[in-house]
Amino acid sequence: MRLIIGNKNYSSWSLRPWLLMKHAGLKFEEIRIPLFTESTKYQLAEYSPSMKVPVLIDQGETIWDSLAIMEYISERYMKNQGWPEDLMIRAVGRSAAAEMHSGFFALRNELPMNCRADLKLPLSSEVRNEVDRIEAIWTELREEFRSYGPWLLGQFSIADAMFAPVVIRFSTYQVDLNELCEDYMDHVLSDPYLEQWLREGREEPEIIEAAEINFRSTE
Amino acid sequence: MRLIIGNKNYSSWSLRPWLLMKHAGLKFEEIRIPLFTESTKYQLAEYSPSMKVPVLIDQGETIWDSLAIMEYISERYMKNQGWPEDLMIRAVGRSAAAEMHSGFFALRNELPMNCRADLKLPLSSEVRNEVDRIEAIWTELREEFRSYGPWLLGQFSIADAMFAPVVIRFSTYQVDLNELCEDYMDHVLSDPYLEQWLREGREEPEIIEAAEINFRSTE
Repeated sequence: MRLIIGNKNYSSWSLRPWLLMKHAGLKFEEIRIPLFTESTKYQLAEYSPSMKVPVLIDQGETIWDSLAIMEYISERYMKNQGWPEDLMIRAVGRSAAAEMHSGFFALRNELPMNCRADLKLPLSSEVRNEVDRIEAIWTELREEFRSYGPWLLGQFSIADAMFAPVVIRFSTYQVDLNELCEDYMDHVLSDPYLEQWLREGREEPEIIEAAEINFRSTE
Repeated sequence: MRLIIGNKNYSSWSLRPWLLMKHAGLKFEEIRIPLFTESTKYQLAEYSPSMKVPVLIDQGETIWDSLAIMEYISERYMKNQGWPEDLMIRAVGRSAAAEMHSGFFALRNELPMNCRADLKLPLSSEVRNEVDRIEAIWTELREEFRSYGPWLLGQFSIADAMFAPVVIRFSTYQVDLNELCEDYMDHVLSDPYLEQWLREGREEPEIIEAAEINFRSTE
């Protein structure tokens, strides 16, 4: 099983299935394609029908898009436990994950994931509105499910994988949140796999960093 | 069970779960909120945590986002058959649906869904690229699954619901596609439920149309 990802420092979409697959205890090969270089598109074309990362190659088939990869991993390798058992909790988790999957463009543009950065930025009103919405989602889920565990739906789920890059961004750009959300962020940031990703993002091989100067958010 | 939707003429996201729920034979109440009016946000606030349509209210709980609603309907009311049985075909279908869910912005902006319109527009190069990509997705799926039935994965699935508004757009704006894709479009456009939606979009009550002048694509 191979997971094609972008730079660990920048590719927030790549982090999502990677984190789920680590939590599921899966063994897989990582193929890292340096983004923003002249050869990126040729390398992507070899693996990715949508010309985007991440892509999963398993049993000779290609599965693309972070959310679709995670649903597949859950069904095939996690006995469907990428989401909690209860159908209504699954639905609420999927609602939050899907809202992240299709939105929050201001946040994605103005606060790109960058594991090496650490700076406080003034937030535009669009980003502020999106931060408020994410704070509302996290708060509601934590209030409802905290008695089941420290993650958004209690136990670790696809929802946490989906929001993990947002946690990194809020940490990088020092975004203030309520205490319940700060606690959640602390929990995510102390996850051993997330720590591993951040470390590998900070220490990315030179070839992966070749085109740092061309960096712009791909999201 | 209540499905909160926008104008049938414009709200492509609303069409998606509505079409799946019709195909599943479900009985549900439709609540149509006129978009682009001064009171839209107050009406949305009553139902929708994300301030977007569609929203499903079932068993006292609120589920939002088209894709999350469809996954819920599949699990709760369709014995998980919103996607085919085979795990790999499910994954490929979800890949295509997720790519639609998170992308194709040029298409969504430049060719808004409008059941009443019928005009050929020149396509920008961005839209042309996206049309090419959608043509590639449909062609690949139809070539692989045509022996199982006339829909993208053979039998009707969430993937067809996800692409139904695109079929309407390509028809409205007379976008040329290969024969396999034209056949698929003909099949979708002759679906009785899709025909019902189009008819109800064309004949929308005046109150729903109050703010036609403020129209812009919400996607």
